[in-house]
Amino acid sequence: MSTKANKRTIATYVTGTLRGAGQVMFQGSAWTGLLIMTGIFLGCYLENPLGEHMPLVAWGALAGLVVSTAVGYIFESKADGDQGLWGFNGILVGCAVFTFLGNTPWAWVALVIGSALTIPARRGLNNVFAPFKTTSYTFPFILVSWCILLAARDMGQLPPVGESIASLPTSVAVADYHYTFGELVVYWLKGVSQVFLVNSWITGIFFIVGLALCSRWAALWAMISAAVALGMSIAFGASHADITEGLYGFSPVLTGIALGCTFYKPGVKSFFYALAGVVFTVFVQYGMDVLLAPVGIATLTAPFCIATWIFMLPMYKLQDKKTK
Amino acid sequence: MSTKANKRTIATYVTGTLRGAGQVMFQGSAWTGLLIMTGIFLGCYLENPLGEHMPLVAWGALAGLVVSTAVGYIFESKADGDQGLWGFNGILVGCAVFTFLGNTPWAWVALVIGSALTIPARRGLNNVFAPFKTTSYTFPFILVSWCILLAARDMGQLPPVGESIASLPTSVAVADYHYTFGELVVYWLKGVSQVFLVNSWITGIFFIVGLALCSRWAALWAMISAAVALGMSIAFGASHADITEGLYGFSPVLTGIALGCTFYKPGVKSFFYALAGVVFTVFVQYGMDVLLAPVGIATLTAPFCIATWIFMLPMYKLQDKKTK
Amino acid sequence: MSTKANKRTIATYVTGTLRGAGQVMFQGSAWTGLLIMTGIFLGCYLENPLGEHMPLVAWGALAGLVVSTAVGYIFESKADGDQGLWGFNGILVGCAVFTFLGNTPWAWVALVIGSALTIPARRGLNNVFAPFKTTSYTFPFILVSWCILLAARDMGQLPPVGESIASLPTSVAVADYHYTFGELVVYWLKGVSQVFLVNSWITGIFFIVGLALCSRWAALWAMISAAVALGMSIAFGASHADITEGLYGFSPVLTGIALGCTFYKPGVKSFFYALAGVVFTVFVQYGMDVLLAPVGIATLTAPFCIATWIFMLPMYKLQDKKTK
Repeated sequence: MSTKANKRTIATYVTGTLRGAGQVMFQGSAWTGLLIMTGIFLGCYLENPLGEHMPLVAWGALAGLVVSTAVGYIFESKADGDQGLWGFNGILVGCAVFTFLGNTPWAWVALVIGSALTIPARRGLNNVFAPFKTTSYTFPFILVSWCILLAARDMGQLPPVGESIASLPTSVAVADYHYTFGELVVYWLKGVSQVFLVNSWITGIFFIVGLALCSRWAALWAMISAAVALGMSIAFGASHADITEGLYGFSPVLTGIALGCTFYKPGVKSFFYALAGVVFTVFVQYGMDVLLAPVGIATLTAPFCIATWIFMLPMYKLQDKKTK
Repeated sequence: MSTKANKRTIATYVTGTLRGAGQVMFQGSAWTGLLIMTGIFLGCYLENPLGEHMPLVAWGALAGLVVSTAVGYIFESKADGDQGLWGFNGILVGCAVFTFLGNTPWAWVALVIGSALTIPARRGLNNVFAPFKTTSYTFPFILVSWCILLAARDMGQLPPVGESIASLPTSVAVADYHYTFGELVVYWLKGVSQVFLVNSWITGIFFIVGLALCSRWAALWAMISAAVALGMSIAFGASHADITEGLYGFSPVLTGIALGCTFYKPGVKSFFYALAGVVFTVFVQYGMDVLLAPVGIATLTAPFCIATWIFMLPMYKLQDKKTK
Repeated sequence: MSTKANKRTIATYVTGTLRGAGQVMFQGSAWTGLLIMTGIFLGCYLENPLGEHMPLVAWGALAGLVVSTAVGYIFESKADGDQGLWGFNGILVGCAVFTFLGNTPWAWVALVIGSALTIPARRGLNNVFAPFKTTSYTFPFILVSWCILLAARDMGQLPPVGESIASLPTSVAVADYHYTFGELVVYWLKGVSQVFLVNSWITGIFFIVGLALCSRWAALWAMISAAVALGMSIAFGASHADITEGLYGFSPVLTGIALGCTFYKPGVKSFFYALAGVVFTVFVQYGMDVLLAPVGIATLTAPFCIATWIFMLPMYKLQDKKTK
């Protein structure tokens, strides 16, 4: 019934909002979104039970999600809103602002304005990628957040309390760490939780379960990609501190889900293609970490965007007869 | 009469050249261009009556304008030349070279070559933006000028006397300045004059009057945008020195004129959309100031280009019934 | 006979592989490729007869060429493979890895993965440039190699033994060198050899002869462009050390061959257009050298790509009646 289809209740909007959390990992499911939000809140409070900084990330995420979804619903297509496609950039803006900035009124203003600005940015950048049958992914979030994180260096009211010290890259010696199996599992799960800038293995489990609710392939690819990134990073002698915080994992996780089971159907060909994309993402992550060192900001999910664009631009048709 | 239309006199070329100065602010009017040129010369001589450096900016601007307009007329379409569309990048190259470089013969060579190179760069980059119904704006100027400003660090014959010291970004404390109304007016007007890299409130008045000659909306948007940028910068605790020189204002001024009354008709919807674009530009300006700190070059008008592209790419139709 | 045309022998693949070396300079000729490979090996061994580092560049080049050509043949079009179009990015990745990194097993892994990744990157990026009737040039090589060179700063197993020290740009005094004619010839020839990151005037001669075998115009443009770059660099007071190593010449050489006789037929108009492109490339080279100083990596052939894209994007038709 068209009447029924047009009846929009508060539940429609709540569902659309929660789906925004799921769409960060390409899952348009409110249940996945709910588990992700739960994981974020739990991780933020557990990691820092007494402190003030980390729980802010969770509240920032919620604010960014609500603001961007609302702006999208008001000014843009309801269809995209119902799929959660306006909220996924905003929730990440919220995570990023309070991961790196202190709790000031003007940081909240920047968060709200930034989340809202992802809406025209997403529509505009999607037009650029449309001829190549792909989209802007999380790049609207990256563009807006980079501006805010950089601005924090110059704006007295935006204190960059969580940002790295800007420094010139040097070179590093080979570190010889021996990781226990338990440590590796923790770092591996943090690779998944860092998709939302959360440094908690418990959150990682929530995210994987949330993915599995909607797509077991997505959960599998998140696990494979985080493992590949962890293994490569240990082999190449990457920064120990970054390994322990899961900072090499989050972009490959997104690439794996995107290429392995979202834009291509799971199959033998797409398996190896997605694997190559994950490996490429790890190299782009390594490169961008150093590239941004002199300005002391994080890569955010830009390595995922760059590697996945490169792997989508060829517009390969990877049809496997072995999969239905 | 086609005969008459084809009769090109020296006046045709002078008009086309002066319009180039006007087109920096989207006004294809020789009178606007004349007022802008007057403002530049006046500002440069008033700011530095005895010195040598600043007046050079005015002569560089004139040289860049003439060279680029001439190259455009010779190799490209006469129609664009008559509209001043070949000159606006060149005049800015001229302003930039002698704002940042010392007076050497090779700096003049770089200025002339750079102004000429904006012609193929503009035609080429316009092709990239054509599918999105927009253009390259001042990006040919930015591309060429960044090369020259960066080169000045390595080339003994291009002394970077006016460039910042390259430095790693740190963080800043909240400064507590109390601005008088008179000070604010001066900084606000300098935000307009800095469109042509001139640091003079008198020049700002000439620019606003020049805009008003051609379009009162453009003059209004220049004033609104510079005010918004000034207000935001004080609120967010931006660099005091940059505020006093109008360095947060010039890119938003261009975005405001572009979105508020050039690419969209003035109206309620386009008013708020342009306002959002101006706010976005301010954030991009903050971000790029820090991004370029390690190489010590200015953003030039890149924040305007980036923000306005993002706001034009969605190709919104903002028709207001309230405006004709 | 279609039977004969389809009979692919080992010679077909060897030819296709060697052509990859030639295609770096736009020559799809196995003989040119053979002379280039000979020049690389000779230059690397002559420059460093007892050391270990430099000869590695030659073996890395061979490995990168073979890997990328093989990956292209296996997954992509045979036609491009036979023209050497899959190999030219891979050979450059091989040259770059061991020009800047030490000889570790993981550097070889990075080289092999990087060379293979140029294949989807080339196909993808070519789609982006197709509407403008041009291609991605050597940008797949640049993208992949920048990631590896940057990664080397953070990865203990990828020692950046040949990379510059990351530093903030300052300014330089005018140096007053008097060059003998013999010195100038050496630096000029090194400008050609540096196309493959080889610092040897003998290699430069091999490259020019190799070009002449296939196209005398290409050999001529390599010589003209390297000379223009050398002359400009001395005039503008560029870094003496970089002049002596030919580091201002390699990108202009590629631009000259591309614009002067590859994408346009040789003629009066295309001569001056290519010359303008060469001059632009020199400025982009100057700019990018400084831009990348804070991260201490080389520009690779990015100045060639950027300048040639800008000069191809206008899609000028430069037909000269004076040339057939």
